[in-house]
Amino acid sequence: MISANALRSFTEQIFLAIGCSESDARLAADVLVSADLRGVDSHGVARLPGYVRLYDHGRINPQPRIQIVHETPSTAVIDGDKGLGLVVGPWAMQVAIEKARTAGTGWVAVRNSNHFGIAGYHALLAADHDMIGQAMTHAAPLVAPTYSLDKLLGTNPIAVAVPAATEPTFLADFASTAVAYGKLEILQRKGQDIPLGWAQDAEGNPTTDANAVRNGGALVPLGTDREHGSHKGYGLGAIVDIFSGVLSGANYGPWVPPFATAGFMAANEGVGQGTGHFFGAMRIDAFRPADEFKTHMDTWIQRFRQAKAVEGKQVLIPGDPERMMEADRLANGIPVVEPVVKSLLELGERFGVTLTQ
Amino acid sequence: MISANALRSFTEQIFLAIGCSESDARLAADVLVSADLRGVDSHGVARLPGYVRLYDHGRINPQPRIQIVHETPSTAVIDGDKGLGLVVGPWAMQVAIEKARTAGTGWVAVRNSNHFGIAGYHALLAADHDMIGQAMTHAAPLVAPTYSLDKLLGTNPIAVAVPAATEPTFLADFASTAVAYGKLEILQRKGQDIPLGWAQDAEGNPTTDANAVRNGGALVPLGTDREHGSHKGYGLGAIVDIFSGVLSGANYGPWVPPFATAGFMAANEGVGQGTGHFFGAMRIDAFRPADEFKTHMDTWIQRFRQAKAVEGKQVLIPGDPERMMEADRLANGIPVVEPVVKSLLELGERFGVTLTQ
Repeated sequence: MISANALRSFTEQIFLAIGCSESDARLAADVLVSADLRGVDSHGVARLPGYVRLYDHGRINPQPRIQIVHETPSTAVIDGDKGLGLVVGPWAMQVAIEKARTAGTGWVAVRNSNHFGIAGYHALLAADHDMIGQAMTHAAPLVAPTYSLDKLLGTNPIAVAVPAATEPTFLADFASTAVAYGKLEILQRKGQDIPLGWAQDAEGNPTTDANAVRNGGALVPLGTDREHGSHKGYGLGAIVDIFSGVLSGANYGPWVPPFATAGFMAANEGVGQGTGHFFGAMRIDAFRPADEFKTHMDTWIQRFRQAKAVEGKQVLIPGDPERMMEADRLANGIPVVEPVVKSLLELGERFGVTLTQ
Repeated sequence: MISANALRSFTEQIFLAIGCSESDARLAADVLVSADLRGVDSHGVARLPGYVRLYDHGRINPQPRIQIVHETPSTAVIDGDKGLGLVVGPWAMQVAIEKARTAGTGWVAVRNSNHFGIAGYHALLAADHDMIGQAMTHAAPLVAPTYSLDKLLGTNPIAVAVPAATEPTFLADFASTAVAYGKLEILQRKGQDIPLGWAQDAEGNPTTDANAVRNGGALVPLGTDREHGSHKGYGLGAIVDIFSGVLSGANYGPWVPPFATAGFMAANEGVGQGTGHFFGAMRIDAFRPADEFKTHMDTWIQRFRQAKAVEGKQVLIPGDPERMMEADRLANGIPVVEPVVKSLLELGERFGVTLTQ
């Protein structure tokens, strides 16, 4: 178990060591560790060595000049100048929030960025201002559209945060695939099979091989197969890709640069600049009085939580599991798995930073 | 086979007969018949008797005073005055388009409306103006959230229309469930089973019973079960419900009024006014030059269409199947099934309108 504070301090010092400003290093560390706290271990400090590898290969600029390159009263396009997505994301969300203050809503497309951590972190930033927050990003291609053998889409997550009055903020944050790739990696490490319906093999058939995606196969869209609606998950992933990539001037589809997988370090930037994201902020009182809205959100949440459930289960509100995990990990520490601890210690050695366990 | 023109003319005259204005009757007929043309038979003229039943029960106002009740530069809330959703929808979309002209984007939440036909019709209205169109609506509860036995959400569809240059408009239009309820009804009529993964029985177990939803069961969210991501489909349906219902001041969740099912005609309006929708229009050149964007959309579409596919299949672009169906039905007529023809003829008899077959 490692405390969130220890992980955050260590991560911040690593980002400082590669040349980030103090405020950027602090922010980037906060985004990463919030993933660990919320139980999204695949998007937390486990990725820190990956960000450093991106830096080593010149794909991250630790001192970016993030700029608005085009804007209207309710929109902006932002060039991330190859900055950490962990820093570009909150910067862009702040622009969306400012636009919403005056225009009612704000919508920001970002290009020339990198992996931005968990989408939910960014969406939540708007909820603190009595706004509905939205964040989405595309990612390197791991997903085959319905009937495709080619991997053309990333796991392309969407997050929507909606504030309530006395209930906690509603936060839906999900990939547009049947499962996140991190779930396959966990079973790979254990040498176990995956359930049918998560991935396809090189011929497009359902498979239980946890290594399928590395062996010519692909993740499948949410819905799993055509009969169960995979064309809908494909449509959702496509929308995220178009908003994040085509609207912003970033890459898109199979051209989205990889994160930091060995052998894929050269970004194949054929159609745009870097990775893209899309953010939105809608001021609640641009629609109806915020207090009235939030009271109705309480009613919504309470009705769903009180639903009659199948034996031994309960109906959860989007965001509940992550919030419960965060409370637990703040109290008891974060169980970082051994290979990740090892990779962090190696980073620490390289940069002369100590990880307090 | 009945020609689109004959169906449209018949439908228009029925709407005129219940008191709609000429322009409203023409518009409502166009929305309904466009569903038949695009192959979404469940949302086309098959619903005409249902709209008339809603009118008979005082739940539709054929002469609504649709009004903007609140607005900011990029948002509006519209009261549909119990008008046909088929008419309120395009009215609201027009407001979104006008907002987008000046503010870059326009976002309109609607309350006090009714069933609005196919979401894609409304989203497409923006694409004609070099805008990205979005339309969503909630619906009467048929869907159980993950682990729930209660039906708390509708099939809650989302449509996003994105214009391209030489390629046809990208149009994703899908329910947030594994399947539309219409697919169960088709198998009910044939007395056949449904595939596992579409619905659950009264105890929450997977079922092949096509009548499950009527017998205490429910449709399941996109993703089918927890292991395959049903919590994501639940999250998506919840977002549609919150945007359409809570943001607009309509009903939401289990309180969304039923369409026109016998025995459910009394709207149980406990928490808001009528049914709600949510529309968006984003001017493309509020982000980047429209020509540049549309050329990249062509590249996107062509790359996906050229994907290597599984034996005997091809990768489709969202909107392809409906476009192909429309071309076929415009040329060859619409195959309206016998029970629907019968119900239309009954309507014709009641109102003295002839259906040319």
